Amino acid sequence: MKVTREELLAKAKKTAEDAMRPHPSDSKKFTKEELLAKAKEPAKDAMRLHPFFRGKIQTAPKCVIRDVNDFAIWYTPGVAAPCRAIHEDQNLVYEHTNKGNTVAVVSDGTRVLGLGDIGPWAGLPVMEGKALLFKYLGGVDAVPICLDTKDPYRIMLAVKLIQPSFGGINLEDISQPKCFRVLDMLRTDPEVKIPVWHDDQQGTATVILAGAINALKMVGKQVEEAKFAVIGTGAANVATLRLILASGVPFGHIVACDSKGILHPERDDIAQRKIEFVDKWRICQNSNAEGRRGGIKEAMRGADVCIAASKPGPGTILPEWVKGMADDAIIFACANPIPEIWPWEAKEAGARIVGTGRSDFPNQINNSLGFPGIFRGVLDVRATTITDEMAVAAARELARCAEERGIEDDHILPTMADWEVFPREAAAVGVKAQEQGLARLSFSRDELLAMAKDTIRQAQDMTHFLMEKELIPPVPAEWAREEE
Amino acid sequence: MKVTREELLAKAKKTAEDAMRPHPSDSKKFTKEELLAKAKEPAKDAMRLHPFFRGKIQTAPKCVIRDVNDFAIWYTPGVAAPCRAIHEDQNLVYEHTNKGNTVAVVSDGTRVLGLGDIGPWAGLPVMEGKALLFKYLGGVDAVPICLDTKDPYRIMLAVKLIQPSFGGINLEDISQPKCFRVLDMLRTDPEVKIPVWHDDQQGTATVILAGAINALKMVGKQVEEAKFAVIGTGAANVATLRLILASGVPFGHIVACDSKGILHPERDDIAQRKIEFVDKWRICQNSNAEGRRGGIKEAMRGADVCIAASKPGPGTILPEWVKGMADDAIIFACANPIPEIWPWEAKEAGARIVGTGRSDFPNQINNSLGFPGIFRGVLDVRATTITDEMAVAAARELARCAEERGIEDDHILPTMADWEVFPREAAAVGVKAQEQGLARLSFSRDELLAMAKDTIRQAQDMTHFLMEKELIPPVPAEWAREEE
Repeated sequence: MKVTREELLAKAKKTAEDAMRPHPSDSKKFTKEELLAKAKEPAKDAMRLHPFFRGKIQTAPKCVIRDVNDFAIWYTPGVAAPCRAIHEDQNLVYEHTNKGNTVAVVSDGTRVLGLGDIGPWAGLPVMEGKALLFKYLGGVDAVPICLDTKDPYRIMLAVKLIQPSFGGINLEDISQPKCFRVLDMLRTDPEVKIPVWHDDQQGTATVILAGAINALKMVGKQVEEAKFAVIGTGAANVATLRLILASGVPFGHIVACDSKGILHPERDDIAQRKIEFVDKWRICQNSNAEGRRGGIKEAMRGADVCIAASKPGPGTILPEWVKGMADDAIIFACANPIPEIWPWEAKEAGARIVGTGRSDFPNQINNSLGFPGIFRGVLDVRATTITDEMAVAAARELARCAEERGIEDDHILPTMADWEVFPREAAAVGVKAQEQGLARLSFSRDELLAMAKDTIRQAQDMTHFLMEKELIPPVPAEWAREEE
Repeated sequence: MKVTREELLAKAKKTAEDAMRPHPSDSKKFTKEELLAKAKEPAKDAMRLHPFFRGKIQTAPKCVIRDVNDFAIWYTPGVAAPCRAIHEDQNLVYEHTNKGNTVAVVSDGTRVLGLGDIGPWAGLPVMEGKALLFKYLGGVDAVPICLDTKDPYRIMLAVKLIQPSFGGINLEDISQPKCFRVLDMLRTDPEVKIPVWHDDQQGTATVILAGAINALKMVGKQVEEAKFAVIGTGAANVATLRLILASGVPFGHIVACDSKGILHPERDDIAQRKIEFVDKWRICQNSNAEGRRGGIKEAMRGADVCIAASKPGPGTILPEWVKGMADDAIIFACANPIPEIWPWEAKEAGARIVGTGRSDFPNQINNSLGFPGIFRGVLDVRATTITDEMAVAAARELARCAEERGIEDDHILPTMADWEVFPREAAAVGVKAQEQGLARLSFSRDELLAMAKDTIRQAQDMTHFLMEKELIPPVPAEWAREEE
C-alpha cells in the first residue's frame, strides 16, 4: 500500500491535535505518591521496549544502491575522486559527505537526567534517545558518543579528535562546573572548526526564555521591565540568565540564588572559585541592584518571574514565598521528577502562570522544543558557532509559533507534535547567523524554511515507512498502549 | 505498491546473476592507458553523485514512534529505567541500546586507498563508503570516525575514549608501521573491552587466503605443501603471511620480499627497527628455510603461489620470473590501480590462475567479501576479540561458498552480489569464537546463520524500500548508467 504524503500529513496533524487536547491532569491534583507512580508508567514501557528494539537508532543508506556495481562509485575505485577533491579543498567535505548534517551527542555520563554520575555506558540510552529526537524532529543525523573519562581535558581532546566526521557537537549531561569550562574552551578554541553546544545549558535556557516571553505577554508585562528571581545556578539557569540578559533585561533586575542563598559581591565562597565559576561570579558582581541578602524567599519578593531549576520538591519553594511575588506572578519550577512547588499550590498562593519540566502538567518546559530546530538552522547555513543571540532568536520564534496558534495561561508553549515549530526555529536561527556574519552559506528566510521543512518531513516519512513495512517491528500486542 | 519479500529476493538473485556473467574484459587485453581510462569511469560518476546525495549514510530510527508520546519511553522520563539497570549491570548496555550492533570505522587518513596521507577530512568519503558496505552487506551499523591526529598514541586514546558507544572498532587506512602497533596495543590492552580489527591487515588477508585455498584446490595441490612467495611486506601481506601460517603452511615454505629484497636473519635494516616491525623481524628469523638471498625473482623461483601487494605495475613482476615458478602457478597481483603484472602477461608466462585487486578483471581480491560477514558473526556472539583463527574460519567458509557454486580458473571467489556468503562467514566466525572461548553468547551454527540472514536481509530491504519511496532520491536521468 502506497501512503500518500497527504495521508501522512493528515496523520501527523491528528497526532498534533491529540496532543493538544486538554490533559486530564490539567484540572486534577495528585499526591506526591500518585505522581511518582505516574512517572513510573513510561519506565515500565521503557524496560520492556528497550530490550525489544535493542537500540533506538541505526544507520541507513543515504545514496542509491542499484546493485553491487554501485559500490565502485561509493567505494574504491570511484571514491578516490571525491577524496582527492577534498584533499585539495577541505571545504568540499561538506559537498561530498554527510558531515554537514551529522552531529555528535557527546557525554561522559556524569550528570544524566536526575540520576547523577552513572557513567558513559548507563548514559547511552539517553544519548541514543537524543539522537532519535534529533532525527525525527530536526532531520539531523546524530551519533551518540559516550566517553570513558571524566577528565574535562580528555573530553575536549576527544571532541577535537573526532571533529573531521561531524558538522556540530552537542554536549550533553556533563556535570558542572566542568561543563562550563568544556563548552567555553571548545567554543573559543581556534582549532575547533564546528559549532559546539551544551544542550543542558543553552537548549534548556532557550525554551525557558520562550516560556517567559509568552507568559509575560499573557500578563501584559514588558520583558525589559520585569523583575526575575532565578533559583538555582546550575548549567540551565546560568545560561537562562545569560539569555534573559541578551533579550534586553537589565542585570540589576535579576536576583539569583544558589543553595547558599542570594548571589552578591560579598559571596567569598564564589569569589574563591571564580576561575571555575566565571559566569556565577559575574552574576555576583552585576545582578541584584537592590543589594538583597537572604535566601529564596527574599529573592522572590516582588518578582514578576521566578525561574527555578534547583532541588526537587515539593517544599523547595513555599506557597507563602509565592504570595510575596508581584501580581500575576509567573513561576517555572523545573526540578525533576517533582517540581519545587506543586502547580496547584503555586496557583492557590497567587501565581497566574506555572510551568514545570513534566509532560503530564500544563506548560512543559521541554528542551526537545529547542535543539532539533536550532541545529537544523545552524547546519543549513553552515554556521561556525551558536551564539546566545541565535538562541534568543530561536526562543522568540518558538514563542511566536505558540502565540500564532493562540496562547492561554495553561498553554504558553507549543508541544513536540507541533512539527512546524522546528523549521520555523531553523529559519530564525539561520537568518540570525547570517546577520551576525557567522554563516558560511546564505539563504533567505523562505528558502531556509522550505529546506528545513523538507528535511524534517523526510525524516518523519522515513520513520513511518519503516514502521509500515515492519522494518521497525510493531510493539507486541500485549504491550500496546491502552488507547490502541 | 507493496513489494513482497519474494520479489525482492528475485531481484537480488538477478543482480547476482548479472554480476556473475563473464565480463567482456575476460578475453580482452587492454593497454595501460585504456585501463587507466576505464578506472576513471567510476570516478566521473563519483564526482557527480557524491555531491548529489551529500553523504552515503544517515541515521534512522530503530524503534517505533507511534506519536510524540513515545518519546516519554525513549527519552525522559522513561529512559531513566534502562539507564539505572545498566548502571547496576554494565552488560545490560547490550540489551537496552544499539551498542552491540554498532562499529566505529576509525581512520587518521594517513594511507587512504592508493592516495597516501590525505588526512581525515579527505578520508571521510572512504569511511562513509565502508559504513555503507558494513550495513548493506553485513547489517552492521557503522559510524565513520575520522581522527584529526597522526599520533598513534592519540589514535589509541581516541578508540579507548569512545568505546562505550561501540560494539567493535574497525581501524582503516592507517599508515604503517604505526598501524601494527596501534592494532596490537589495542588488542592486548585490558581496558579495551570490545574487538578491534584492522581491515587493511586482517580483512585483506582473509580474502587472499580464501583465494589461495581455492586456487590450490583448482590446481590440485595441498595448502600445507605449497611454497609461497610473498612480495611486499605492508599491512596486508604481513597479515596474510600470518593467516597462511595459521592455516597450516610451514614457515620455511614462505619466502618474503620487501623493497630491499628477500627477508632473512641477516637483514640488519629490519633488525635495527625490530620493535616497530615485530612481525617482519619474526619473518626474517623464521621464513625462507632454504636461506635464499636476492630479490623478487629469487623469491618467486619454484613457488606454487605468489602473493604480491607491493608497487603498482606493470613491470613490478616480470614474465620471466613467472616462468621460474612451479607448474600451475598461482599469482595474486594486488597492487592498485595497476597490478604488478598484467593478468594476460602472467598467463602467457605460464601462470594458471591470476587474481588482482580490480573489479574489471577476473578473480578480484575484494576485501568487501570479508569484514561485513566477519563483524556480523563477531557481534552476534558478542566476541571479545577477533583472532587469526576466526579470520581463517571466515576464509575457509568464503572458499567453500565459491566451491559449492562451482569454481573455475577465472572464478575462484564469490562476488559481493552473492549475498549468502556474508551470513555463512558470520556463522563460521561465530562458531569459531565459541570454540575458542571468546564468545559471550552461545548459538548453534544454524541459529547464527538464520540470525545473520535476517539482519542482512532487513538492511537490504530497507535500502530498496527507501529507494522505492524516493526517500533516497533517484539518480537524475541524464546521469543514469548506460544499461538503464
